[in-house]
Parts: sequence; structure tokens; C-alpha cells
Amino acid sequence: MLTQRQTPIPRYSVAGERFRARTGVRRIMQDIEQTLADRNAAGIINLSAGNPLRIAPVAAMWRRFLSAELERETALDEAIGRYGSSRGYFPFIAAVVDCYNEHYGWNITEKNVVITPGSQSGLFYVLNAFCGAQPDGTSRRVCYPQNPDYTGYQGLLWDPAQIVALRPQIELTGEHQFRYGLDIDALADVDDVGCFVLSRPCNPSGNVASDQEMATLMARAEALDVPLVVDGAYGPPFPNLVEVPMSLTFGPHVIHSTSLSKCGLPGERIGILIGDERWIESIEAFQSNACLHSSRLGQLVASQAIATGELERLAGEEIRPLYSRKRALLGEAMRAQMPAHLTWRLHEAHGALFSWLWVEQLPFADGWEAYERLKTEGVLCVPGVAFFQGVPATWRHQHETVRISLTASDEDLVEGVRRIAAAFASP
Amino acid sequence: MLTQRQTPIPRYSVAGERFRARTGVRRIMQDIEQTLADRNAAGIINLSAGNPLRIAPVAAMWRRFLSAELERETALDEAIGRYGSSRGYFPFIAAVVDCYNEHYGWNITEKNVVITPGSQSGLFYVLNAFCGAQPDGTSRRVCYPQNPDYTGYQGLLWDPAQIVALRPQIELTGEHQFRYGLDIDALADVDDVGCFVLSRPCNPSGNVASDQEMATLMARAEALDVPLVVDGAYGPPFPNLVEVPMSLTFGPHVIHSTSLSKCGLPGERIGILIGDERWIESIEAFQSNACLHSSRLGQLVASQAIATGELERLAGEEIRPLYSRKRALLGEAMRAQMPAHLTWRLHEAHGALFSWLWVEQLPFADGWEAYERLKTEGVLCVPGVAFFQGVPATWRHQHETVRISLTASDEDLVEGVRRIAAAFASP
Repeated sequence: MLTQRQTPIPRYSVAGERFRARTGVRRIMQDIEQTLADRNAAGIINLSAGNPLRIAPVAAMWRRFLSAELERETALDEAIGRYGSSRGYFPFIAAVVDCYNEHYGWNITEKNVVITPGSQSGLFYVLNAFCGAQPDGTSRRVCYPQNPDYTGYQGLLWDPAQIVALRPQIELTGEHQFRYGLDIDALADVDDVGCFVLSRPCNPSGNVASDQEMATLMARAEALDVPLVVDGAYGPPFPNLVEVPMSLTFGPHVIHSTSLSKCGLPGERIGILIGDERWIESIEAFQSNACLHSSRLGQLVASQAIATGELERLAGEEIRPLYSRKRALLGEAMRAQMPAHLTWRLHEAHGALFSWLWVEQLPFADGWEAYERLKTEGVLCVPGVAFFQGVPATWRHQHETVRISLTASDEDLVEGVRRIAAAFASP
Repeated sequence: MLTQRQTPIPRYSVAGERFRARTGVRRIMQDIEQTLADRNAAGIINLSAGNPLRIAPVAAMWRRFLSAELERETALDEAIGRYGSSRGYFPFIAAVVDCYNEHYGWNITEKNVVITPGSQSGLFYVLNAFCGAQPDGTSRRVCYPQNPDYTGYQGLLWDPAQIVALRPQIELTGEHQFRYGLDIDALADVDDVGCFVLSRPCNPSGNVASDQEMATLMARAEALDVPLVVDGAYGPPFPNLVEVPMSLTFGPHVIHSTSLSKCGLPGERIGILIGDERWIESIEAFQSNACLHSSRLGQLVASQAIATGELERLAGEEIRPLYSRKRALLGEAMRAQMPAHLTWRLHEAHGALFSWLWVEQLPFADGWEAYERLKTEGVLCVPGVAFFQGVPATWRHQHETVRISLTASDEDLVEGVRRIAAAFASP
């Protein structure tokens, strides 16, 4: 299935070999692109996309704020025409600080924030600053307490062996509904970690770890004196793709990560880390060595979108309702079309850009084979197995799950579900 | 002199400790900022700046192209509103490809180019992809064949011990003029390196390694089957801050690095790597793991600036002449004001944003003490020692050199030289 390199391969360092590898979803990205290019005429339906939908009022907002900056003389010239602080563009940081303090009653200052070229970069700094070889000769792993979780985490760590991931607790919460819980008990045995990372809401499952689960994680991070990184790329205050109550807590052992990628600016790569001053200062220094600082034009424009409250307003009025409606539509299509002899469940609708399907007792050898079967039926979905880490390959559940993107058109969602039903009804 | 951390320091990995460190110029950055803040009223003259000058016609060009993109509907929305390729924004890559093929008769394609969030990031990927621990258990160093060289190189490598730097050959080429040559003979003994890196024109000395020196370096890189990275952030085709003839050669073992930071866009972080397809593909994959891709808005705007030839025109008509004039002014001021009893020389005027002064037999303990003496006289310059790597601390020459930024006003340049002369005349 996967295309192979034809050219001679030069020698790379261990890190070079490590980071040349395509992990998680990237394993099938080339195949998806090739399939879409080859079979476009044949009407294949793509439910694999991670690119958020273009939402006209949101795009118009970015245009409007960019136009406004072109009218103002000095800020634009200064933003693009000068090197900046490795911390980020200060008016943007100020807007972020005010926004979080206002919403959550926090008391953070600009010393608690660092801006990176996308949250992937920020997580790259944090994970490698804390995990791996330690000065005292020991080694610390990264702990992914949540499974499945964001595929991008799989390629972040300099030393790929350094992972501990917990197997999820599967809670059946309805005839066609389930939820992943954290294995809280297993956390107590995890003591050689440099940091914890999870997405909340979860990309891809949509799970929102409960406040109680978060409290347990925070206590564990505090006990080990290491950071708990909470990746809120889908969370409040923006883009706020959340369907359940969800609080955010600040503390000396939490680093909040978020981004503007689901707010209409994925191409601009704006990642935000908020955490204890001592850690943020070190992450800034890491960034100053590895990339100086992130681009300032997008930050300049976003400063106003955040400071005026406009971004949050559109998140609430346009972005969240759209995905909420898509999610409901998909659920209806599933209930209408999935054959009665299949035991299937969707993850509880907490939020995010995807729905997550689990069909018990699928007869495929693994999730990759399920992907191929769906493809022959004319629908592309990323197999859930791509998002599991650190669990035995033999664990069946991961091969029985599929990530369904909510970014397709209504028609494609309904027809895509029909094809998924057809593929799994007669595998 | 340097301020110390007051807060308790948490535990970091080896890499975390490594990248938290402030190397090279960053060692005195805080002191410079503090001094400027404290003594602004006292009229201190700052010849330490690395920020390029704001040049009104260049700033106007960026505004113009940005306005034009706001007029066009789709490109802007697509650029900022979608995730992109880890390779870069394709219209920008296409403009770069055409530009280099046209100027140098190369035959590169989009497969030879990857765009990074600034050239610092690109070099971070390249150095770590080739140097350090190797899969066969051996280790390879990075070789900086040129000394002094860009301070940012000092913080790039995961393993800081892995450096081999050659001591420069000092060629006296006039009463008040000299040039750094590469120690070509020493190159033959360097065989455990993963890549070579040098800036050309050199930041900070302004040296342009000769075509013959480059040929020798390329032959050595080819013999070892490793890349030679040529950092052309000041070079042709843009910003082209070069006063001497200078050719660019493409080949299977050269990776050219350049940037738009000296073209009026330092805040936008646009780095460009051009090299053999097999290497570029791996660097793209490294980037996809570490940061997904770089910001697209700046690339969108720059596509037109490059494709229309406007950027090159302004580089030739505005950017280069300005620094050329500043450099001449500084030379005149030196000849007029440096006391006769000092043996002083400026590096040959090949290009770049700085002049480089060498005063023999300075009586200071080291370059940092020279920095302090200049400061008491009311002028800030970065001591040359900050740019030397891998030479013994006892080697006098490095402590007798000073980097002088050409980004100051004419008045400040002349008065700054007067203060430098005063400081060194009676140390």
C-alpha cells in the first residue's frame, strides 16, 4: 500500500533517522493523497481530512483585521520588519493574558506565555526539554495518559523508545455510545516520566477528560514535579468546539497549549503555551536556540481578533454550531444506515472535529486492512489504530475503530456513512 | 555583569539544559538591553544591533504586495485558512525555483526546496539530522570551517560537544585591512563530521569565502558524502549585500540556506533551503514531525515580490547601497579618529550588515572586558569573541576583535567610532 523510496538513502544521525520517519497518520497520508488524485473522477468520498472547514464569516474576520492593520501605519511595519522576542509578539501575548484572566479568573502575566510556530513546535520543545536522557544519567519517559490521542505526538520525541501510554478504560454509556476513561489506578505506577501530555478535547476521539480525571493527573504531575501539558487546540476559550461543561485550571504544574488552527488560521501556525514562569522562560530559551521566534504578522492580526472578543463571538456563533450540526447529522446517518447485526458505537459527543466509530468484532487482520476495505467501497477514513500508542498491537479494540472527519459536506457525510455500513456489513 | 536567575530551577533533560543555555551573543543580550533601558537618557550609542534597518521603499513594497493579496479573493483565504505542505507554500517555492534557475543556470525543481520558519530552524533540522550519534554507534561532529561565524550556530546542536572549528588564517591585505582565510590544509584531517556549515557572506565578519575555498570545501563534503551548508542570508540573489564578485554553485553535496530577514521581513521568519532532492525530502519529514510547516501568509506575499523581480530590484537599488555607504562612512571615521599608536584593521569590505574591527595588543583580559570598557565610554559593541567557536580561550586574536553594526544612524556611527577610539586609546 505504502509507496517506497526509490533513491539511494544517505546516512543520517540517529535523530535524523528518527525524524525522517512518518508516524501515525502520516503513514497513510501518501496513500490517501494518491487515492484522491487517482480516483477523483470515480467520486471517492474523503472522510479522512484533518483540515478544518472554511467558514466564510471567519475568513471574512481575518481579512477585516488584516485590512485594518494595513490602514494603521506603524504596527505592521514593526511586526514584519524587525526581529522579535523569542517570547512572541507582545500585543498578542497581552491579548491572550487578558482573555484567560477574564474567563477563568486566573492571574497570569506575560511571563506565563510563549508563542511558537504552531502548537506542534511548542510540544516539541516541552517534551524534549523534560523527557529523555537526564543530567544524572537516568532517563525519563513521556506519559500519554489518554489513548487514543493526537497522532502528531508520535513524532515529537528525540528518543522514540521513551513512551509510556495507558490503555483506556472503555465505558459503555448507551446502546450506540461509549466513552474512553483514563486508567487512574495505573497512573500511580508511573514514576519515571518527564511530562504528561493529553489533548482535551481529544483529537481524535472527541473525549473531554473529566475534571476529576484532570485533578488526578495534576496531582500526579505535582507529586513528580513535572509538567502536565493540556493540549486545548479544540477547547475554550477559542475555538471552543465543546459540547459539555469543561473548566480550565491553572497551576504550577500545568502547561496549557492551544492554537489558532481551528479558528481559521491553520496556515499561520500560531501556537500558545501558558504555564509557570520558570518553565515558560526555559521554553523561550529553547525556542531562541532552535528557531529564534515565530512569525509576527499572524500574531499582529490575531491580537485584535482576541482583544475585541470577535474571535470568541465567531467561535460561539459559527464554528461550534457548524461542527455540532455535522456531528448530529453523522449520528443520525449512522443510526439510519448501520446494519442491525453490527455492534457499533460512537464516542460520546464531547467536541472536536471528528466522530469516532467503534465496531466490535470486525473480521479484518488489523485497522490498516479495514482502511483498505473502506477504500474499495469508495470512502477514505483514517483507521483508529493510527492514534493508539504504547498498547500491544494484538489488542483488538484499536483495530475496530475509525476516525470520521466532520469536515465533509452533508451529502458526503451521509453517503460516506452508507459506504462504511456497506463495507463493514459484508467485509 | 550577567544577571543570575533568582527562581528555583526545575529539572530538565540533558537537551533541556542544553537548549535553555544562552550561547554566543545571547550571553550579553540581557546586559545590552538592560544598559540601553537604564542609560537611554545618557545618550549611549548602540552599535550592537543585529536588527536590519527599516528602509522605507522596502517596507512600502511589502505593504503593496500584502494589499494586492487582500484584493485577490482566494489565494489569501487558502494560504491562511488551510494546513499546508511541510515543504512550504508551493507558489512561493515555484518563485524561488525560477529565480535561482534564471540567475545561476541551475536546473532545480520544487523537489529541491523546503521552506522553514526562518533559516535558524532549517539549520537546526539539518545539523541534527546529520551530526551527533549515528546508527552504527559512532558519532559525527559538525564542522564550522570558518571562524568567526554566525553566533546562532552555537545553539543548534543537540550535543554541544560535537563541534570542530578551524582557526582562521589571518591575511594582512593593507595597512588597516585584513581578511580571514580558511585553513584549507586542516580540512584534510577532518573526517568524522556529519556536515559543514558556514555563512557566505560571513555574519559577522563580512568575509566572502573565495570560490577556490568553496571548491575545496565542496570536494571535502563530497569525499565524506555529507552536506556542505552555505548560509547565504546576506548573499545573492537577495538581499545581495555583497561588494565583491560571488558565484553560487549547486551540486549534490551543497545545501544553500537563505532567508528574507535582511529583505525587510525578519519578523516573518521565512527560511529557504535548496539542496539535493534526497536530503530535502528528509528535512521536510523532520519538519513535519517537529513543527508541521512554516507560516504561509509571508510566503504568499513574498511569492509576488520574488516572481516580479521587485525584491531583487530593491535589494540592488536600496538595500545594498545603504549598507555600502554606511560601511564606507565607518571606514572614513576609523581612519580619521583611531589614534596612531594603535595597530588596527578592518576586515575587507565584502558585504553583510557589520564591520569587523581588529586592534592588536589590546590590554584587556578578554573580549568581555573590552566590551565593559567600551560601555563605560558610552558605546555598545558585541565583542568578537562571541563569534569564535572551537578555538582555545587563550588565543589572543579573538579577544582583540569587535563587531560594529552598520545599522546605526550616520551620526551615531561617527560618534561611536570616536568613543571606540577613546576607549582603546587609553584602556
